[in-house]
Amino acid sequence: QIMFTACELGVFDLLLESGESLSSDAIAARLGTSTTGMERLLDACVGLKLLAVELTQGGALYRNTEISNVYLTKSSPKSQYHIMMYYSNTVYLCWHYLADAVREGRNQYERAFGVSSDDPFGAMYRSEEEMLKFMAGQNSVWSICGRDVLAAFDLSPFRQIYDLGGGGGALACECVSLYPDSTVTIYDLPKVVQVAKERFVPPEEHRIAFHEGDFFNNSIPEAELYILSKILHDWDDDKCRQLLAKVYKSCKPGGGVLLVESLLNEDRSGPLETQLYSMNMLVQTEGKERTAAEYRKLLEAAGFGEIQVKRTGKLYDAVLGRK
Amino acid sequence: QIMFTACELGVFDLLLESGESLSSDAIAARLGTSTTGMERLLDACVGLKLLAVELTQGGALYRNTEISNVYLTKSSPKSQYHIMMYYSNTVYLCWHYLADAVREGRNQYERAFGVSSDDPFGAMYRSEEEMLKFMAGQNSVWSICGRDVLAAFDLSPFRQIYDLGGGGGALACECVSLYPDSTVTIYDLPKVVQVAKERFVPPEEHRIAFHEGDFFNNSIPEAELYILSKILHDWDDDKCRQLLAKVYKSCKPGGGVLLVESLLNEDRSGPLETQLYSMNMLVQTEGKERTAAEYRKLLEAAGFGEIQVKRTGKLYDAVLGRK
Repeated sequence: QIMFTACELGVFDLLLESGESLSSDAIAARLGTSTTGMERLLDACVGLKLLAVELTQGGALYRNTEISNVYLTKSSPKSQYHIMMYYSNTVYLCWHYLADAVREGRNQYERAFGVSSDDPFGAMYRSEEEMLKFMAGQNSVWSICGRDVLAAFDLSPFRQIYDLGGGGGALACECVSLYPDSTVTIYDLPKVVQVAKERFVPPEEHRIAFHEGDFFNNSIPEAELYILSKILHDWDDDKCRQLLAKVYKSCKPGGGVLLVESLLNEDRSGPLETQLYSMNMLVQTEGKERTAAEYRKLLEAAGFGEIQVKRTGKLYDAVLGRK
Repeated sequence: QIMFTACELGVFDLLLESGESLSSDAIAARLGTSTTGMERLLDACVGLKLLAVELTQGGALYRNTEISNVYLTKSSPKSQYHIMMYYSNTVYLCWHYLADAVREGRNQYERAFGVSSDDPFGAMYRSEEEMLKFMAGQNSVWSICGRDVLAAFDLSPFRQIYDLGGGGGALACECVSLYPDSTVTIYDLPKVVQVAKERFVPPEEHRIAFHEGDFFNNSIPEAELYILSKILHDWDDDKCRQLLAKVYKSCKPGGGVLLVESLLNEDRSGPLETQLYSMNMLVQTEGKERTAAEYRKLLEAAGFGEIQVKRTGKLYDAVLGRK
C-alpha cells in the first residue's frame, strides 16, 4: 500500500519531472497533501528502497531510485502505474475477505463491492471506470512480460492469430512487433473491444483486428494460432475444457494454442508469487493457478498434442499445444 | 492476509491438536471450509514457510513448522493470534484508505468504519468486541516483547509503578514477575479497566491494582515510576507534552518515567518496520513513531533529566527519564 499510495499521489512523477531532490514539505505542497502524512510516506518509501534520501543542512531531500523511474512513473514506457492502482483499489479490498473466500470457495465481489459474484467479469467490469482500470492494468503487465512469453516459442509459422480475451491489446501489439508478418485479432466482449479500439490500440496498426463476442457463448472463428493469455486461470476445469474444445474445433490443422500463465511447481512448494496469485484467483474469479502437468492434461483432453512447456524464469510462462 | 486467514480458520490449532500431518481435504472437512480454497491456502502457507508439506502416495500432507506452533496457535503462551486478528480485521481496512490518510494527515475510521475519527480511542473502542480484540492483541505483543523492554533498565529501585494506558495488563504481569517487589497500577479508561479485571488479570495477583480514569482529563496519582508503553506514539507533540508535564508533576522526586516505543533511526533510513508502524499511526491515531532524539526532547521539555535510551534490537525499545 505504501508503493501504491506514493504512485497514486504522484510522488514518483513529481520527482521525475522536477529533476532534482525535493524536501517533504515541497512534495506535500506540490501534491496538495498533509505534510505529516507525506513525510512518513516518503520515509517508508526510503525503507522500501523506492526513494533515496540525502540529509542536508536544510533538511532531508528525496529522489527517485532507478527502479521507481522505470516502473513507478506514469510516463515511463514500462510504467506499472495502472496495474498498481487496480491492485490497490480493487484487489486489496477483495483480500480483506480472504477467510470468507476460503470458507466458501468463491470470489468476494458481493462482500467487497455489493455486486453479484456469479459472473466474475460482469463484476470486474461493473463500471466503465473499473473496466478501464483493469484493461490498463493488464496492458502494464504485458509491457514488461509480453515479449518473454511470445518469444518462448518460435511463433513465426503462425500468421493468423486470435488473442482470446485480448483486452487492451498490449500483448497483441508485442506480438505483431515481434512477428511482423502476423495478424492478431483481439477477441473480447463488445464493450472491451470498443474501449480497446478507442483508447489503447493505435488506429494505424493494421495488423491488429477486432472481434466482438463472448468466447463461451459465441462462435470462435478459424485461425492458425489462438493465444489464451491469463484466461484459463480465471475458470474452473469444466469451463477450461469447454473453451479448449471449442478452440480445438476451430483451429486449422497444423495450428496451435498458446497458453500464457504463471506455472505452479509440481511439488506444490511454490513459486510463492504464483501461490499468491492463486489465492487472488479465489477471491476474484472462478479459477486458480495450475501446474504444467495440469495444463497439459487440459490441452490433451481437448485433443491438442506435441505439448511443449517453457518456463521463462519470470512471472509468466508459456505452454504450446498443436493440432 | 494468508497467515491471518490460516489463523482465523484454525489451521495451525488443528494441526497442533491432531499431532499428525493432514491432507488438505481432511483439514477442509474438519474446519468446515471449501476444499478448493483450503488447498490453495495451505500451499501458500508452505510458500511462506508457515507449514511444511510432504508428498506421499496418498497426496500432500501438511504440518506446522516450529514457528507456527509457537506463535500462530491459540493455545501457545506466546500466541500472536489476537494481534493478528486485530491487524487482519481492523488495521487492514484502515490501510485501504492510506492515500486519503496522507492527503488529509488524519486517521481513517470514518471511511473504514463510519465512526467519527476525532477521538481515536473512542473509534477503536467503538464496540466491546473491538475493545476486547485490541486489548487481547496488545497482550499478545507483550507476551513476547514485554520482558525485553522491562529488562532494558534495572527498574528494581522503583516499587510503586503506574502503567498509564496499561490495557489488558500483560506488561504489568511481566513487570511484577521480573520485579517481584513492585506493585503495578493499571491506569486506563473505566471500561478498559473493567474488562482487564474480569478477563485478563488473574484476581489472585495482588501486586497489580487498577485505577479508572482518562489521563488527559483526570488527575494522575503520585508514584515512583510511570510506564508509558506505546502511548506517546498515539498522540501529536502537543498532547505528548501535556501528558508528560502532568506525569512529571505527579512523579516523586527521584522517580522516573519509562517510555516503551519502537524507535526510528535518526537518519530517517529505518527500521522499515517502525516506518510502517508510523504509517499505521497515521491511519489509526493522532500520533507517529519518533526518533530517540525526539523523545528526549519531549522528556526534557517536561522537566525530566538523566535520560537514557536503550535499543533492544527487537521491535520495541526503552527510554528512561528521571525526576
